[in-house]
Amino acid sequence: MSKPQYLTGDKAAIDAFIDKFDVFLFDCDGVLWSGEYLFPGTAETIEMLRAKGKQLVFVTNNSTKSRADYKKKFDSKGITASAEEVFGSSYSAAVYISRILKLQPPKNKVFVLGETGIEQELQAENIPYIGGTDPALRRDIDPSDFEHIGDGSALDPNVGVVLAGLDFHINYLKMSLAFAYLRKGALYLATNIDSTLPQAHSLFPGAGSVGAGVAKAFGKDPLALGKPSQAMMDAIEGKFKFDRSKTCMVGDRLDTDIRFGIEGKLGGTLAVLTGVSAKEHFLAEGAEVVPTAYIDKLGDLLG
Amino acid sequence: MSKPQYLTGDKAAIDAFIDKFDVFLFDCDGVLWSGEYLFPGTAETIEMLRAKGKQLVFVTNNSTKSRADYKKKFDSKGITASAEEVFGSSYSAAVYISRILKLQPPKNKVFVLGETGIEQELQAENIPYIGGTDPALRRDIDPSDFEHIGDGSALDPNVGVVLAGLDFHINYLKMSLAFAYLRKGALYLATNIDSTLPQAHSLFPGAGSVGAGVAKAFGKDPLALGKPSQAMMDAIEGKFKFDRSKTCMVGDRLDTDIRFGIEGKLGGTLAVLTGVSAKEHFLAEGAEVVPTAYIDKLGDLLG
Repeated sequence: MSKPQYLTGDKAAIDAFIDKFDVFLFDCDGVLWSGEYLFPGTAETIEMLRAKGKQLVFVTNNSTKSRADYKKKFDSKGITASAEEVFGSSYSAAVYISRILKLQPPKNKVFVLGETGIEQELQAENIPYIGGTDPALRRDIDPSDFEHIGDGSALDPNVGVVLAGLDFHINYLKMSLAFAYLRKGALYLATNIDSTLPQAHSLFPGAGSVGAGVAKAFGKDPLALGKPSQAMMDAIEGKFKFDRSKTCMVGDRLDTDIRFGIEGKLGGTLAVLTGVSAKEHFLAEGAEVVPTAYIDKLGDLLG
Repeated sequence: MSKPQYLTGDKAAIDAFIDKFDVFLFDCDGVLWSGEYLFPGTAETIEMLRAKGKQLVFVTNNSTKSRADYKKKFDSKGITASAEEVFGSSYSAAVYISRILKLQPPKNKVFVLGETGIEQELQAENIPYIGGTDPALRRDIDPSDFEHIGDGSALDPNVGVVLAGLDFHINYLKMSLAFAYLRKGALYLATNIDSTLPQAHSLFPGAGSVGAGVAKAFGKDPLALGKPSQAMMDAIEGKFKFDRSKTCMVGDRLDTDIRFGIEGKLGGTLAVLTGVSAKEHFLAEGAEVVPTAYIDKLGDLLG
C-alpha cells in the first residue's frame, strides 16, 4: 500500500488534492472540534470549500445529538451548515428501522439505550420507543425490578428492537432491561460502536463501550448503523446522490472514518491528526488502514 | 471425551461418586440457591457430606459479598458453614494484590468498580482504595468532570490498580474514571468476568458485562482472579492444602465452574442443572467442556 501524502504546508499539493473532489464527507468530533473546543481555521476551511462549489456532508457517529441539535452546534461555532447536510448515526439507525426493517405495528417498538438525539430521530420517522431519557429508568435497580424483569412483567411485549447508542446515563437497570428484551428475541442494533469518545483533549468511553456490557451478556454484537458500516454509506448516497469517485472522506479515526471511506470505494480519504489516530498508526509498516493523504489539522487546508 | 454420568435417581452411582472424593468445592449461585430462592435439599445435602467427613469449600465468583456476608447468607438459609470455608473472588483479588503484586505504598491504591464485598476484602488485607460504594460517584457525569478527568486533576496519583467486579451502581462517571486510570498505567484486574448473573429464575448482566465497557474502551481485558482463573485455584489450595485428585468441583457453569475444575486437574467435576448451563451444552457432539457427572439439582445427591 502506498504511503499517504502529507499536505500540511504544501499549498500546491493541497490545491491539487481539493480539486480532485466534488464532495467532502466530514466527521465532526476530532475533526471540526473536540467537545466544545473549535480547532483553529475550521470555519474558514468550510467557507473556502463552499466558495469552491464543493458539496459538504457532515457524517457523525455521535448519537446523542439529532440533526437539529447539530445545526445549533454549527451555528454556535460560527460554521455555516444546514440540518440537511448533517447525517448522524441516530438518523441512520432510525431510517434503517423504518425503511429497511419495516417492522409491523404494534411489534415495532424500540427500547433505547441512549440520549435525546436517538429519540428525536425515531420520532421523525414515527417509530415508537421506550427507555432512552425516561427519568423513571434513571435510578438504582431494586429487588422488585429483578423479580419483574425476571418474570417478564416489567417488559413491554411490543418491543422488537433494542437500539444502543452513547448513553451518559447508563445504569444496571437499563442494561438489565436491554438484555431481557434481547433474550426475548428483540433485534439488536447500535447507532455506532466507537470504543472511545474524544472529549476535553482526552478520551472517554464511546457508544461501543457503553453498549459492550449488554453485548457481552447477550453473547452477540449489535448490527452497527454508523461508520464504518456501509449501510450508512448507502443511506448517505441514497440521499445525496454523489459520485463516489469524486468524493473524499475526512476523519480522525482510521478504524471508523478512513475505513468507512476506503470500504465505500470513495475517490480519497483525508486523515486529520486532531483526534484519536496518530500518524504512527498509518505510517507504520503493514498498517491495515491507510488514508490517501493527511494533515495536522483541518485548518491547514487553507494553505 | 467420554460422556458424563447422570446421577439423579441412581443411588449406587451417587454413593460411589461421593466416595471418590475427600473435598468438595461448591459454586454457590445457581447451585445452592438462585438469588434468594434456596433449592430443595441443599441444606440436607451439605449436612450429609459433612456427616461423611468431607471437607467443603464454597468458591464463589460473586464479588458483591464478603466472606462475612456469605456467612450471614448461609445462616439465613439454614446451611451450616463458616466464613473460613468461603473463598470469594473479592477475597481472591485482595490476596493477589497484597501478596502477589506487593505494590509499594503510596502507589498501591485501588480504584474499585464494585460493591461493598470488594471493599471489605481489600480492608481485610490493608489495601487502600477509592471508588466502590462512594456516594460521591453515584451521580451523572457533568461538564466539569470531563474537564478534570481529561486534564487529570480529578485523578488520584496513587492509584496503581483498577479492580472491576459486579457493580449494581455502574455509571458513565465511574467508567470514565476507571478508563482514565488505565490510560495512566494502572493495572487492570477483575474479581471475575462472568457474563451473566443468575437471579430471580432469570439472567442479568454479570461482572464481566458490567466491566466490559471499560475493557472495550481500553482495548484490553482485565486479569481475572475468579473462576476459571487458576490463580484462584492456587490460592484455594494454598489455604486449604487438599489433594487435587481427591477433590470435586460442583457447579452450574461449564465455562467457569467446570472449566475451573478441569483445568485445575481435579479428580472430578459435577454439573448441576439449576443454573446457567443446560445439559445440551455438554452432551452435544464436540462439546469443549464436559463434566465427570451431572445431576438435576444438588439435593439429588441425597439419593
